[in-house]
Amino acid sequence: MKNLKGAALLGQSGGPTSVINSSAAGVFLEALRQENITAVYGAAHGIKGVLNEEFYDMSLEDLDELKRLKNTPASMIGSVRYKLADPKKDDTDYQRLLEVFKKYNIRFFFYNGGNDSMDTCNKISKYFKKAGYDCNIIGIPKTIDNDLFVTDHSPGYGSAAKYVATTFMELYLDATVYDIPQITVVEVMGRNAGWLTAASYLATQKGLGPDLIYLPEIPFVLEDFFEDIENVLKTKNKVLIAVSEGIKNVDGQYVAETLQPLKVDAFGHAQLGGIATVLADEIANRIDTKVRAIEFSLLQRSAAHLASKVDVEEAFKAGQRAVRAAVNGTSGRMVGFERVSSNPYKIKYKMIPLRQVANAEQKVPLEWIKPRGQGLTQDFVDYALPLIQGDSKAALVDGLPRFAQLKKIRVPKK
Amino acid sequence: MKNLKGAALLGQSGGPTSVINSSAAGVFLEALRQENITAVYGAAHGIKGVLNEEFYDMSLEDLDELKRLKNTPASMIGSVRYKLADPKKDDTDYQRLLEVFKKYNIRFFFYNGGNDSMDTCNKISKYFKKAGYDCNIIGIPKTIDNDLFVTDHSPGYGSAAKYVATTFMELYLDATVYDIPQITVVEVMGRNAGWLTAASYLATQKGLGPDLIYLPEIPFVLEDFFEDIENVLKTKNKVLIAVSEGIKNVDGQYVAETLQPLKVDAFGHAQLGGIATVLADEIANRIDTKVRAIEFSLLQRSAAHLASKVDVEEAFKAGQRAVRAAVNGTSGRMVGFERVSSNPYKIKYKMIPLRQVANAEQKVPLEWIKPRGQGLTQDFVDYALPLIQGDSKAALVDGLPRFAQLKKIRVPKK
Repeated sequence: MKNLKGAALLGQSGGPTSVINSSAAGVFLEALRQENITAVYGAAHGIKGVLNEEFYDMSLEDLDELKRLKNTPASMIGSVRYKLADPKKDDTDYQRLLEVFKKYNIRFFFYNGGNDSMDTCNKISKYFKKAGYDCNIIGIPKTIDNDLFVTDHSPGYGSAAKYVATTFMELYLDATVYDIPQITVVEVMGRNAGWLTAASYLATQKGLGPDLIYLPEIPFVLEDFFEDIENVLKTKNKVLIAVSEGIKNVDGQYVAETLQPLKVDAFGHAQLGGIATVLADEIANRIDTKVRAIEFSLLQRSAAHLASKVDVEEAFKAGQRAVRAAVNGTSGRMVGFERVSSNPYKIKYKMIPLRQVANAEQKVPLEWIKPRGQGLTQDFVDYALPLIQGDSKAALVDGLPRFAQLKKIRVPKK
Repeated sequence: MKNLKGAALLGQSGGPTSVINSSAAGVFLEALRQENITAVYGAAHGIKGVLNEEFYDMSLEDLDELKRLKNTPASMIGSVRYKLADPKKDDTDYQRLLEVFKKYNIRFFFYNGGNDSMDTCNKISKYFKKAGYDCNIIGIPKTIDNDLFVTDHSPGYGSAAKYVATTFMELYLDATVYDIPQITVVEVMGRNAGWLTAASYLATQKGLGPDLIYLPEIPFVLEDFFEDIENVLKTKNKVLIAVSEGIKNVDGQYVAETLQPLKVDAFGHAQLGGIATVLADEIANRIDTKVRAIEFSLLQRSAAHLASKVDVEEAFKAGQRAVRAAVNGTSGRMVGFERVSSNPYKIKYKMIPLRQVANAEQKVPLEWIKPRGQGLTQDFVDYALPLIQGDSKAALVDGLPRFAQLKKIRVPKK
């Protein structure tokens, strides 16, 4: 626990969310207020920007624009997917990081990302400690997948869940306007954890959601799937299906890969179709009815216009608290949430050791998942509902969102 | 011009929009206030419900729920795609309609739909006149495609345009977070008219929109398309492309049909892939870079949470004015909009003879379209911007929209 003085650096990592910039706002605005922080930098494209000494000087930005980051989607200083090697095998990157940190006297490092990013944080933290370089390192969680361990939930999930539930309600109404049978398959993001797909059940609870929901936590059996559809068709002529992109068969293979012929482009890259399209094709070959596939694609993680206020505020506070903790001498931890109660919704912030978080995945508890695509239990609803409350979005100019506009002035290379 | 007394009937027709129910609210609430209207009915699934005598008694609904229709997407009393025959060749349907109208003493008929629906209105209007049955018939426009003739624009377009422009801004930010080249192709609805795809240019004007925009009004040439992409790649490594589902080659064939092998399901139905996927495949085979296809699909026409206030209000007033006009003796007309000025935005409602509207398509003026996917002119921006102003959405309950809940009580068959 050391009280340091020096520059602060933030990196954004992994797939963006509606609120990763809200955490950035929390970090930047708080860091600019701290006396022991002598400079506030943003790394261009995460750890890659650190390795390349590509930093933005955040003190040169307008405060109003930094505040607007709260409601600006994606990763405004650029993100990256870059996995550091095991330092025991190859510590080239770590040596370079240490060199750069020393050169710019970076004493506070914040990394905003998912599982892999917390692993990165953890590795850097340990390496610096071993090298005797004092730097307080704090991870800030973000993921629409909600698969980070130990924390009750992660910023990014609430907004994506609100998008999924709201959009399903609208789709339900749209998909039922004609008096003819129709099956609609909707693909939701989530490779290994079904949290986001499960959010569609919040729409079902309102009477306007999917009839069938398939999560990656439960092995997917095609014959059961058709039986489930036929069961729904006994009582109604519209079937709305939510399916996670990551559903796997009993052998753990992605269903999309097992069902479609592999398409390879001119450069030899395999092109994988989405699971919604693949399943819609299967249905069209089996059931003589209109079938439609819909993929939420990037929309579900960038729809800042439909962000949850709870999520936006928590993301901001997570950034703020990360800075305060680092300035107060905390290091090697991730800001996490502990749920005190769901009704009324109350959480406590806590600082979780990075090693507990890194590389572990939090999945939907099996006891919360009803069998045969029948949705989720009340436990899930109680868990998820508080996270999608309230609206928080950018002011409108010309009827369109006025997102943050950063100058992104580069710190001269030393 | 006859002042009649009797029942009023509304039908919803064609693809739904975010605001077709707002027009329904305008019709129902106004009709319930009129002394000369003795009953207010809603037809289940448009003209099909009329032929089958399937009516809902709207006077039995809660007024609060009818008001909530203003912000409820899709077609709450059910829609239909049904084209009436030419009465000179086969007047079976018309005889039946006349029989039903007489039986229920329907003297005011409102049909809310697009081109085909206005044609339906026109045919019924003429047939009833010839048969000597007094009934004031008014069409109410609705289409996200904005392709209705004579009127400046149609309800439904503004909200869909706002969705397209907003979502493109969010996608632009999301698609540029990584430091690697990427081409993203986004498909927007519009078979023959490019109004909705053109709305993506409003995002481009904000610096956060597509680099290239292709409308069905301009023949699509694949080689030019690749040249356009290469041109963008000269100055940046991300290319965002908006493409209308209806783009055609110089021979007038849909590009999607000319480029992909025809897939036929087990029942012999041709399955057409979306143009975004088809073009993404072509790009992947030609340019060695990451390519992604996104389809807005039903989301663009059902996203009531992102509706334009101007659109919601105009849709409501169009319904209201249709009732007032019919009660005052007007028939055989469609409620239309005449633009007085764009800045400040000012419109006048007008009653357009149905025969002028039926079966004619309003396309984007060619002089508003810049060559080679370069977007639209300022004329288009001045035209479209007023239509996407303001927010109007359903109240939230549990963080989710509280849409109208109708009892839908059937009128006993006579």
